[in-house]
Amino acid sequence: MAHIDFDPSTHPHRRLNPLTGEYVLVSPHRTKRPWQGQTEPPQQAGLPAYDPQCYLCPGNARAGGVRNAPYDATFVFENDYAAVLPPPGPAPPVAPHPLLTTSPVQGACDVVVFHPRHDLTLSRVALADLERVVATWCDIYARRGTQEGIEYVQIFENKGAMMGCSNPHPHGQVWSLSVVPTLPAKELENMRSYALANAGGGSPDAPKAPGGRCCLLCEYAHFEVGVAHDEGRVVYKNEHWVALVPWWATWPFEILLLPYKRHIPSLLDLSPEEKSSFAESLSNVTKRYDNLFSCSFAYSMGIHQRPVPLRADASPDDDVAHLHLHFSPPLLRSASVRKFLVGFEMMAEPQRDLTPEQAAQRLRAVPEEHYLDASSQGSTRVRSEAN
Amino acid sequence: MAHIDFDPSTHPHRRLNPLTGEYVLVSPHRTKRPWQGQTEPPQQAGLPAYDPQCYLCPGNARAGGVRNAPYDATFVFENDYAAVLPPPGPAPPVAPHPLLTTSPVQGACDVVVFHPRHDLTLSRVALADLERVVATWCDIYARRGTQEGIEYVQIFENKGAMMGCSNPHPHGQVWSLSVVPTLPAKELENMRSYALANAGGGSPDAPKAPGGRCCLLCEYAHFEVGVAHDEGRVVYKNEHWVALVPWWATWPFEILLLPYKRHIPSLLDLSPEEKSSFAESLSNVTKRYDNLFSCSFAYSMGIHQRPVPLRADASPDDDVAHLHLHFSPPLLRSASVRKFLVGFEMMAEPQRDLTPEQAAQRLRAVPEEHYLDASSQGSTRVRSEAN
Ligand SMILES: [Zn+2]
Ligand SMILES: [Zn+2]
Repeated sequence: MAHIDFDPSTHPHRRLNPLTGEYVLVSPHRTKRPWQGQTEPPQQAGLPAYDPQCYLCPGNARAGGVRNAPYDATFVFENDYAAVLPPPGPAPPVAPHPLLTTSPVQGACDVVVFHPRHDLTLSRVALADLERVVATWCDIYARRGTQEGIEYVQIFENKGAMMGCSNPHPHGQVWSLSVVPTLPAKELENMRSYALANAGGGSPDAPKAPGGRCCLLCEYAHFEVGVAHDEGRVVYKNEHWVALVPWWATWPFEILLLPYKRHIPSLLDLSPEEKSSFAESLSNVTKRYDNLFSCSFAYSMGIHQRPVPLRADASPDDDVAHLHLHFSPPLLRSASVRKFLVGFEMMAEPQRDLTPEQAAQRLRAVPEEHYLDASSQGSTRVRSEAN
Repeated sequence: MAHIDFDPSTHPHRRLNPLTGEYVLVSPHRTKRPWQGQTEPPQQAGLPAYDPQCYLCPGNARAGGVRNAPYDATFVFENDYAAVLPPPGPAPPVAPHPLLTTSPVQGACDVVVFHPRHDLTLSRVALADLERVVATWCDIYARRGTQEGIEYVQIFENKGAMMGCSNPHPHGQVWSLSVVPTLPAKELENMRSYALANAGGGSPDAPKAPGGRCCLLCEYAHFEVGVAHDEGRVVYKNEHWVALVPWWATWPFEILLLPYKRHIPSLLDLSPEEKSSFAESLSNVTKRYDNLFSCSFAYSMGIHQRPVPLRADASPDDDVAHLHLHFSPPLLRSASVRKFLVGFEMMAEPQRDLTPEQAAQRLRAVPEEHYLDASSQGSTRVRSEAN
C-alpha cells in the first residue's frame, strides 16, 4: 500500500465534539459535487421601519389584545404562547411502565425585542443598541435565574424565514425552566469530566477556572487564538472575545463565540469592558454572516452559561460553565441553498462537506462593513479594500 | 394550592427517549396557538413514469457518464459522490491538541433504487415490489456488512423536496462505515445498559433476547400493543410488526416500526413470513402518511439493527440490537406547514406541541387505501368508510 499523506480538505474523517461527546463526519471531497437539492428564495429586503401588522412593533396589539409599550430601546414581555407554564403544575401521573415516565417541567417564556425598528437586525443596529441587548440579557438572566424553581435560563434567537421564524422584527427569546435541558446538561457534564480528567494539566498559559482547574473551553479557545490566523478556524477576535468555526462544527458556517482571556461562567461575570467587546463581537459576526451571501443571513443562536446565577449554597463545581454562544446557520453555498440535517445525519451522525477551516477562511475574507452600508457608498470600492 | 389533575394533552411535561437518553419537551397546550411560520408548496403531482433527465431512471446516464442498467425491479449502484471512500485511507495526522483529534473513517455509499417507475413511491408500489426492496436491503446488509473493515451498515431513505431531496424517483441509500455512527452507537449502549439494569426482570410475557435477557424494544413494543387501541400510540399492527408514535417522539408524526412478537436483531434474522409482513407494514405506514394531508409525504427513514451480520467471534452481548425503523417527517398540520428543529430545540432540547397520542389518533383515523387510488373510485365513499 502506497503511503498517502492525510489532507483534512480531501480525506473523509470524523471529529469529536467534546462539548456533546458526539461526532461529526467530514467529507470534504464532496464539495466538488454538483448541487441537486432545494433552493430557498432569498430573504425579502426593503421592510418598513414600522409595520402596523407586526405584533412586536412599539404600541401594536399582540394576540389576546395586550398592547406593546411604546418602547424606544429593548422590550421584554412574556410569550403569549409559552411552551412552559409557571408553577404550580399538577403532579405527574404514575408511569404505566418504567419506559413511559412523565417528568414535570415548569417555567416561563419571555420575548426580548432587540430594537423598536421593524427593519433592523443585530447586524444593522448601532453598538449602543447592541450594548442594550447585552444589558437586557444580563437583567433577564439575573431576574429569571433567581426565581423559585428555575434551574436553567436559555437565551436564544431564531432568525430568518428559512429557520421557521416568520416575523423579521429583531427579537429573541428566553425560556426559563425547572430543569437543565438536554444539550446544556450534556455540555456541562462533559466540561466537568474534562476538568476532572485534566486536573493539574492543560496548557500552562491557558486561563484556569477557580481553584486552578482546567476548563475545556478556556483550553480550546486559547489553542485556537494561537494558530496562525490564515490557517486556523478563528474568524474574528478582539480584546476579550473570539469567534471561530469550531473544529467539530456541524453546520457549514457554524460559529462559536466566547471570551478567551479568562474563565467567565456567566453573563453576570462580565466586566463593563467585556460587555462592550461582547457587543462588538455580535456586530462583527452578524455583519460577516450577512456579507457572506449579501442577504439577511438566517441562523439559530443560543447562549450557554452557568445554568442560573451563583447561589449561596453553590459548590465549587458550579464554576465549571464557561459562557459561550453558538450560531447555527442553515445556509450553504449561496443565499438560497439550504443545508438539511436529514437522512444519514438524522439517523446516524451529522455530516459536513466544507471543512471548518474552509468555512473560517470564507468568513474571514468578507468585508467587515455591512454590504447594505457599503453599497450606498459604492460596493466595489469597499469590497476590494477589505479583501 | 388547589389539586390539579395531570392531563397529558394539556400540561407541559418532558418525556425521556430511552434509546438516546435524551428528553423531549412536550407543550400540548400550544396546539391552540395561531400558525405564524413558513409554509412550503405542496409536492408536485403528475410526474412522468420515465424522465429522460433523471439520473435514476433505467438506462439513463449518471454524473460521470456511467449508464444505469435497464433494470426492471430494484437497482443498486455505488454513489458517484460518496461521503466516505473505500480503504486504504491515509493515517490521520498527529493532533496538535488533544481536543483536535482526527478519527479515520472509511467505507462505501450505495444508492438503492426501489422501482424503475420514476413516478412511484413506496406508498404506491405493489406488495411484491416492496418485498423486493426488503430483499435488496437484506442483500446489501449481508454483502457490505461482511466486507473487511465495515462496522456499521446504515440503510436510510430521504424522501421529498422538503427534506432537501430533489429527485422524486423512489430510492434510498446505504452508507457502510468503518465505525458505528453516533446515534446507533448511543442506542446500542442504552439497550445494553437496559438489559443489564433489568437482568431477570421485565414483563413476564414480553419476548426476551437470547439467554432470557431483557430487550428495551421488546419490552416497549409489548407494552404498547397491550394498550387499548383507541387510547394508545399504536398506528398499525399486523402478525409480526407494529407501527407506533413512540412515547418520546420528537417529530409531530414520527413513527417507530418494529417486530414485536420476538427479539429480532437484524434483517437477516427475519423469516420469510416476517419479511412479507414487513413489506405490508411499509405499505401501510407510507400510505397513511400520504393520506394524512393528501400529498406525497416527506420523511427521513432509517433502519437500525445489529451493526453488521453476526461474526464467528461474536459475544453474546452482540444480540442486544433489535431491528427497528425510524420515520421522521417534518410535516405539521398540513401539506405545507413544516416543523423546524431550531432555536430552543437546536440549542437546548427537542420540543413538540401535538402529543404522540394525538398524532397516533390522527394517523389511525386516515383511510388505509391510498388517496390517489381512492379518488379514482370516488373519494367521498372510500373516506367515509374508513372513518
Ligand atoms: Zn454550548
Ligand atoms: Zn434506533
